[in-house]
Amino acid sequence: MPRHRRTSVPRWCGYPKRVTFPVVGMVGGGQLARMTHEAGIPLGIKFKLLSDTPQDSAAQVVSEVVIGDYRDLDTLRDFARGCDVITFDHEHVPTEHLRALEADGIPVRPGPDALVHAQDKGVMRARLDAIGAPSPRHRIVADPADAEAFASGVGGFPIILKTVRGGYDGKGVWFVRSPEDARDPFLAGVPVLAEEKVDFTRELAANIVRSPHGQAVAYPVVESRQVDGVCDTVIAPAPDLSEELSGQAQELALRIARELGVVGHLAVELFETADGRILVNELAMRPHNSGHWTQDGAITSQFANHVRAVLDLPLGDPRPRAPWTVMCNVLGGDYPDMYSAYLHCMARDPQLKIHMYGKDVKPGRKVGHVNTYGDDLDEVLERARHAAGYLRGTITE
Amino acid sequence: MPRHRRTSVPRWCGYPKRVTFPVVGMVGGGQLARMTHEAGIPLGIKFKLLSDTPQDSAAQVVSEVVIGDYRDLDTLRDFARGCDVITFDHEHVPTEHLRALEADGIPVRPGPDALVHAQDKGVMRARLDAIGAPSPRHRIVADPADAEAFASGVGGFPIILKTVRGGYDGKGVWFVRSPEDARDPFLAGVPVLAEEKVDFTRELAANIVRSPHGQAVAYPVVESRQVDGVCDTVIAPAPDLSEELSGQAQELALRIARELGVVGHLAVELFETADGRILVNELAMRPHNSGHWTQDGAITSQFANHVRAVLDLPLGDPRPRAPWTVMCNVLGGDYPDMYSAYLHCMARDPQLKIHMYGKDVKPGRKVGHVNTYGDDLDEVLERARHAAGYLRGTITE
Repeated sequence: MPRHRRTSVPRWCGYPKRVTFPVVGMVGGGQLARMTHEAGIPLGIKFKLLSDTPQDSAAQVVSEVVIGDYRDLDTLRDFARGCDVITFDHEHVPTEHLRALEADGIPVRPGPDALVHAQDKGVMRARLDAIGAPSPRHRIVADPADAEAFASGVGGFPIILKTVRGGYDGKGVWFVRSPEDARDPFLAGVPVLAEEKVDFTRELAANIVRSPHGQAVAYPVVESRQVDGVCDTVIAPAPDLSEELSGQAQELALRIARELGVVGHLAVELFETADGRILVNELAMRPHNSGHWTQDGAITSQFANHVRAVLDLPLGDPRPRAPWTVMCNVLGGDYPDMYSAYLHCMARDPQLKIHMYGKDVKPGRKVGHVNTYGDDLDEVLERARHAAGYLRGTITE
Repeated sequence: MPRHRRTSVPRWCGYPKRVTFPVVGMVGGGQLARMTHEAGIPLGIKFKLLSDTPQDSAAQVVSEVVIGDYRDLDTLRDFARGCDVITFDHEHVPTEHLRALEADGIPVRPGPDALVHAQDKGVMRARLDAIGAPSPRHRIVADPADAEAFASGVGGFPIILKTVRGGYDGKGVWFVRSPEDARDPFLAGVPVLAEEKVDFTRELAANIVRSPHGQAVAYPVVESRQVDGVCDTVIAPAPDLSEELSGQAQELALRIARELGVVGHLAVELFETADGRILVNELAMRPHNSGHWTQDGAITSQFANHVRAVLDLPLGDPRPRAPWTVMCNVLGGDYPDMYSAYLHCMARDPQLKIHMYGKDVKPGRKVGHVNTYGDDLDEVLERARHAAGYLRGTITE
């Protein structure tokens, strides 16, 4: 992208008065694309979206939208024309399509060689092993009997089975208590990864952003609390995390990003174990739910830094702006009219930050999140929980 | 807008799962509309834009854009259909058109009776006099001779002459040193307002936001520094401003908003005089350049609060997040490629906040601004000035 490098043309000569801001092509119209667009507006960059439908979260707020199927190479190629770089709202674009775009000369960030580690849990585990990054014990298993054999090698059931591709938010993951439980994961015909059930005390996430020329910034390590396999609450920074473990987690995420050649935002989801270790649970190579707190709690948000990274711009300061920031997801409940709940939530807490995605309410669906920040963790946590619960309808006063 | 009030339908009944978020219609496609859209995205509201051209600053980033002339009532009426409320990027929509929209049942915020005070400086001065708000000595003058007579009544030339309508950023304003200088302002055939040349020590701005049901929030009073009649630097809060004068300025702005029935953001530009008084210079009823610092420096930005106000939502906390925030405008210079300057600016200052408007660079044109914040005013000021100067091209290292 030489167009956005300072040229040697003297600044005082009559250089044409053309705006030379780059075009970022975003594949996928979900809330991550929506919030990345929001973060890109102040930078003056152009944003072009490939979205499944015009009703998608990001398609509602972006000017230049192409409706099409990201699984179709011709669609991707047409979309990529006129983009200076391609990035993603999700990890589902086939690797071979990404290679084709690269061969066409379009920078793809993160590139296919990195992204495959977020697409395929088998590839990810093998690579983490190769670079010495700590994982739960694991191996690809061939069938339910093989899963049982794996279980007996790690102290017996329960174990975790995952299809290596296609899972997210708890989908594609099975908590397996017995040989009978081990059948379902194999029905899809996708390779199945078995992992030991880790005796973890909590889940952490180490979020970092890395640019093509290798600059990287690390956000404070956060605690992530899940309900029914879906992220519910994120606390930044993770309370009572030792400086040593926090540093280890950040260094691990930076090392994974470097070794895998990640460009953009990388979320490393971690287990903290009772005996004081951290183990890698999942990788995500895009802005991530565990980084939403940065929109209001960090000097530079994950979304702004993701945009800067994919454009190979210097990265922004990742440090927090408040002692504590809490993010709570707003899930769809039985009552669809979340807007009317704004009156109570905003009147009760004038510092509350609401982020809604423009999605129709369906029970259990992530339709937004709230951020709160302040000096006292209990108070900050209570405010976020109340707002998320009131918006969902589980708290009514 | 009953659609966004919590209804009496019990939350547990099978109410249709429809998204009931309102549509805000924004008239005018400039940077204020662009940044208001940006601030509206997290609220999940729909944003519809009436813009002169598809290249306008806001039209580049908004999904639903109508290209049309805001001076044409039929265009406005078509645009307003499907909007829950109409608000503005500028003050140029004819008052009678706004009344027609109101008669059609569309809420217009601010309404025509308030907005006329920001459209017509003669009406504004008369109203400020009536409510006892302090203005420079002034009166409408009929011709150059009358202007000379006004001058002799306020201690002689220089005086200020202003056309009552159509001016902004120093346009439509004349610094008149002699009877000969007094001719130009009358050439446009618009009534001319004469004002004494105030012996001010600096300019301040008191920014407040008011909602239809009368809730209001006041931002810290800022110092605004002009160069050639155009805002150059804003410092929040105004350094060395006495608590008494600061309180007076905020109360004055709140009183003006209440008396004039303003809804949304009101900027009251003020002169601080050598003898410790404040006098009203100008009013603006929309987000304002003197409030751009709030994007990164306040808990709730002027743009977010403007959206909340026009929707009659509870307002957000206006307090600052840092001891000092500085905004410097980025004006067009001789070198058009501002994007390449990002490399240096971002690398030099990872905390810098750049806000570009997507506008072509023309010398002297406002094409963006930068915000910096921190504990030490001198350092914060230097960072903002350096970035704005480097982007413009007046600083080259």
